[in-house]
Parts: sequence; structure tokens; C-alpha cells
Amino acid sequence: MKERVLTGDRVTGKLHLGHYAGSLRNRVILQDQYESFVLLADVQALTTHFDRPELIRRHLREVALDYLAAGIDPEKATIFVQSMIPEIAELTVLFSMFVTVNVLRHNPTIKSESKNSGLDEMYYGFLGYPVSQAADIAFCKATIVPVGDDQLPHLELTRKIVRRFNELYKPVLVEPKPLVGEMPRLVGTDGNAKMSKSMGNSIPLDSSAEELVTLIKRAVTDPSRIHKNDPGHPDICPIYAYHRAFRPEGIPEIREGCEKGTMGCAACKGQLASALEQLLAPMRERRAFYEARPGSVDEILMSGTRRAREIARQTMQEVREAMSLDYFK
Amino acid sequence: MKERVLTGDRVTGKLHLGHYAGSLRNRVILQDQYESFVLLADVQALTTHFDRPELIRRHLREVALDYLAAGIDPEKATIFVQSMIPEIAELTVLFSMFVTVNVLRHNPTIKSESKNSGLDEMYYGFLGYPVSQAADIAFCKATIVPVGDDQLPHLELTRKIVRRFNELYKPVLVEPKPLVGEMPRLVGTDGNAKMSKSMGNSIPLDSSAEELVTLIKRAVTDPSRIHKNDPGHPDICPIYAYHRAFRPEGIPEIREGCEKGTMGCAACKGQLASALEQLLAPMRERRAFYEARPGSVDEILMSGTRRAREIARQTMQEVREAMSLDYFK
Repeated sequence: MKERVLTGDRVTGKLHLGHYAGSLRNRVILQDQYESFVLLADVQALTTHFDRPELIRRHLREVALDYLAAGIDPEKATIFVQSMIPEIAELTVLFSMFVTVNVLRHNPTIKSESKNSGLDEMYYGFLGYPVSQAADIAFCKATIVPVGDDQLPHLELTRKIVRRFNELYKPVLVEPKPLVGEMPRLVGTDGNAKMSKSMGNSIPLDSSAEELVTLIKRAVTDPSRIHKNDPGHPDICPIYAYHRAFRPEGIPEIREGCEKGTMGCAACKGQLASALEQLLAPMRERRAFYEARPGSVDEILMSGTRRAREIARQTMQEVREAMSLDYFK
Repeated sequence: MKERVLTGDRVTGKLHLGHYAGSLRNRVILQDQYESFVLLADVQALTTHFDRPELIRRHLREVALDYLAAGIDPEKATIFVQSMIPEIAELTVLFSMFVTVNVLRHNPTIKSESKNSGLDEMYYGFLGYPVSQAADIAFCKATIVPVGDDQLPHLELTRKIVRRFNELYKPVLVEPKPLVGEMPRLVGTDGNAKMSKSMGNSIPLDSSAEELVTLIKRAVTDPSRIHKNDPGHPDICPIYAYHRAFRPEGIPEIREGCEKGTMGCAACKGQLASALEQLLAPMRERRAFYEARPGSVDEILMSGTRRAREIARQTMQEVREAMSLDYFK
């Protein structure tokens, strides 16, 4: 039996190089090794965007296009829409019966958010985020979930919920294993620790060749390098971080050139730009292919969702039976 | 258009005279005036009984039998099973996105429960009880919900959630009106303020004639009446409360006989017992009819659930459209 891997994104905006480096690139590799499920998390997008549903609607197709452009292959991976799997909501409600508020509060994301605004002001659905994540993973019986170090506590809670279910009722659900990878968090073009669309410091995956060059030209570098031959500090430079993430083979040369002041920022950026252009050009091509066939994207999402739904139905049947809720057989 | 009324019970135990006086009797009347939906709340039963699902399973059919015995007519009322309507879970999840923890904490039931054990120790699903109640009412677009005075805050929260949904998206949901009735809370046979199966002070609707007599014989009365002719205090006597609830026409005579000491407790109990026997005898007959045909009870629940599900599907379609979550039309 092939392991089954679940990944996905909240559909709150188009994807950018940060997503690619952090997860997307890895997914394209994983789809050859594992049975892959990719979740378009529109319901979870509502936790922060409930008052902007039309934005979620738009981004659902944008993110799907990003996936296809980045190389997620619908022949290998099942891309599906969260809100179209009612069984995820059903599992969320069932799991919520035996998870205490206390446990949820100690989840790192909830904890840091409740520090900002207080638990009382938190939306009930946001507080339940870890429960709904457990439902995402449990419904399709994912055996593997790729996570960064910082996301391990999230998956640990899912494992705990699944274990509790299996103990309380019958062992029909699967405890997922974390696949701990590097999951590097990409720095923004403004030097901010996180590349993020809302911060305006991202390089979108759908950038044109011109946009790409402009975005890189505008990106900050080591501010102490005023003249071309000033020695630089690559470790504080976003451009160097991008070299590391997307052109690791050039790293020794770039580091030396920067630190010794023998390579100027413009040349360094030029090398990065052409490396990224090599990465984005085939994505642009695949995107153009699908953009010319919007019906085919719909078909991919519908057929992926149908496939996920079949598994969901099967799991819910087992869950109902385990919980003695299968009244009429 | 006929108004649509929703009522129901958590299926945590067989029903007793307290349920009959508090709501069931009223429902039998309402089913002639309104389009009636009666909810067997097995998911909400999990909020307190998640570790005893087999008990919920057993009580689902018991409560259904109680309904039919008490005179709920499946030709007039739609009796349905909560866990078999996934749309209720979907609405619960969607509503949870815009209801804060603070609002839930101020619900009287949650408030008193969190005073006992603290919010932290509360189960997430229990905290969300008011959200799931809103989903119960909203999915079937009930226009009327019978409530006692003490339940008004619950319905007010449902109205608030529905209003918020309608403002945020499109006005597709219906704000239910409360039908405030007496909803008397029946005292227990031990004099405790509430008749409750778990306190062992109830008179089950399925009592046999002998059991009924025994339960009434054993019921406490005014403890100051030691001798038959001692003057009594009817207002502190459970038997008097039952006379009031089930034999109001006899009240003047009973009160006088008790206060003057001209009627002994045994005689007073005898009159109550025969009045209750007149109430329970036809119930026993209807119960026997259905017990002899277990398949027909299943058929009633399945067909009621099918009917509720049709409405649920229709509502969810409108909800998805209102929220722009109807991606593929």
C-alpha cells in the first residue's frame, strides 16, 4: 500500500515564491512517491475572511492555477475543494465533542492569536482550527503530512484527536505521521522575515519576465553596501536568501563575491533573476495552457473533489458504525 | 404559507411526564396548526454522552417511540435524525466563523456550566452548543420555535446568528420567532424541583398501570401531614403539582380537602393515579402498536429524515450561493 500524503493551502491569495520554496516544490516531488491529496481550504479561509467570501471564490481558481502551473499533476495528485466535502464538517463537529477548550488554547497558533486579542474576542471557528485540521487529515486517512518544525504541535494535536477517537470508539481512523522537512520560510523582498502577499513583499508565481526583473531590482540588499565594491553581508540580504533557496549551486561564488566586494548587487541580482526566470518560465507556459482552457481547471477540481468525496463517504460510514450512529443499515 | 415549527429533544434517555407537561403535550397540539419538524438530537446528545454512544443509539428509538406513543403523528409531523443531516454540521461550521467565544460564554447554559468547571475544561463542542442550535433551526427555516421563558436567550442568539448571516451574505435564512408558552417544569416525585430520569424521580411515559400506581404511592407529599386528617400544604406537595398539570379541573376540591385535612394523601394520590392512567393508557396502546412493528418506526424516521434532508439540501444550496461558495454550477 502506498502511503497517502495530504497537503494544501487556505485560499486567501495567489501563491508566491515563499509557498513554492516552503511546500509546493516539495509536493511536486512527493506526488511521484505517494498517493497525493491537495486541499483547497476555502472553509478555513473563512476563519479570517468570512466577510470577504468573493475573494475566496476568486482565489480558489487562482490557487488551483498556481498548483497546476507549479507542476502539481492532476493525473498524480487529487486536488479538491474543502467546502464540497460535507464529511469534513461532520467530523469537525464529532471531534469537537471530546476536545477541551484548554487543549485548543495551547495550540501555538491559537495561543499567539489569543495573546493579541484575548480568547473572548476570538471567533469560535478560529478557536476550532486544530479540530478542523484533524478532520481534514482524518477524513482521507492521510498517513503522512509534511510539516515544518514549527507545525509539529499542530500535527501532534491531530494525532491525539485521532488516537482519542480510536480509543473511544473503534480504531477506524489513521494516525498520520509527520514528514518533517526543511520547509524554509522565505524572507520578503523588503527584508521582512516572511514573504507575504498582504505585506507587498512577495514575488508571485505568475509574475511575467518583466515583473520578475522589476521585483528583484527593487528588492532590498545589505544596506551597508553603498558602492559596488563595498564588502557585503550576504546573511542579512534577501537576494542571498533567494540564491540559497533557488540556486544553491552558485552559493560559494555569490558569497565570496559579496563578502569581498568583487561582485556588485546588480550582477548578483541579475544572476538570480535569470535563475528564477528559468523556474517561472515553464510555470508560465503551463498556466497559459490552463488559462486557455478554464473548463479543464473546473473539471480537474470537480473530479478531484468527487474522488475525495468517495473516500470521505467511506470514512464517514466507518465512523458512524464505530460510534453506533449507523441506525438504519 | 403555513408557519414551520421546530421542536426536539436530545436523545439521552426515555421521556417522562416532565417532558410531556413541558413540551410534548404542546407539540401534539401544534402539529395540527403548523408544519411540524421534530428533531432527534443525537449529535447534541454527544456533548455530554460522547463516551456512551451505544446509549444514544438505544435511546434514539426509545424517544421516537415516546413521541409516537404521546401522539406525535408522523402524517403531520416530520420526525428526523440530526446526525443524518450533514448540512446541520456544515452550517454549524460556517456559523462558527463569525460567532465569538465571548458571545457563546454569555449564553446562560454555557455560563452556568463554565462556572462549575471553568471555560478551559469545557469541551469545544459543548461551548458551541448555541451555534449548533442555530444550525438546527436555520437549516429547515423554522419560523417558530416554542420556548419557555428561560430559553429565550438561546433563541435570541439563533436570531442574532441568522441576522448576521443575512447581513454578511444574502438574506436567505429565516429569523425564527419564539412561541413563548408556559412550559411548566415538573417537580420530581422526591420533591426535587426537576423531574429527571437520572435523579430517579421521574414517571416514565411507558410506565405500566402497576408501575404508575407504585411510583405515585412512593412519591413524597407534605411531610407535616402525619395523620390522615392533619391539614396539608398543597403548594409544597409534588402530588398537588401533578394534579395541577394533569387534572386542573379537580384543583379546587383537592386544595380544600388537603388544607382542611378532609382528604387524606392516599385518596388524593388515588385520584391522580386514575387521571394519569387515563393519560397513559392510550399511549401504552399506541406504543404497543409500534413495538409490534419495529420496521415501521424505522420507516417513519427514515422517511422523516429524507424529507428534512431535501429541505437541508435546498437551504445549503442557497447558503453556498449567498456565500459565493457555489463554484461549479
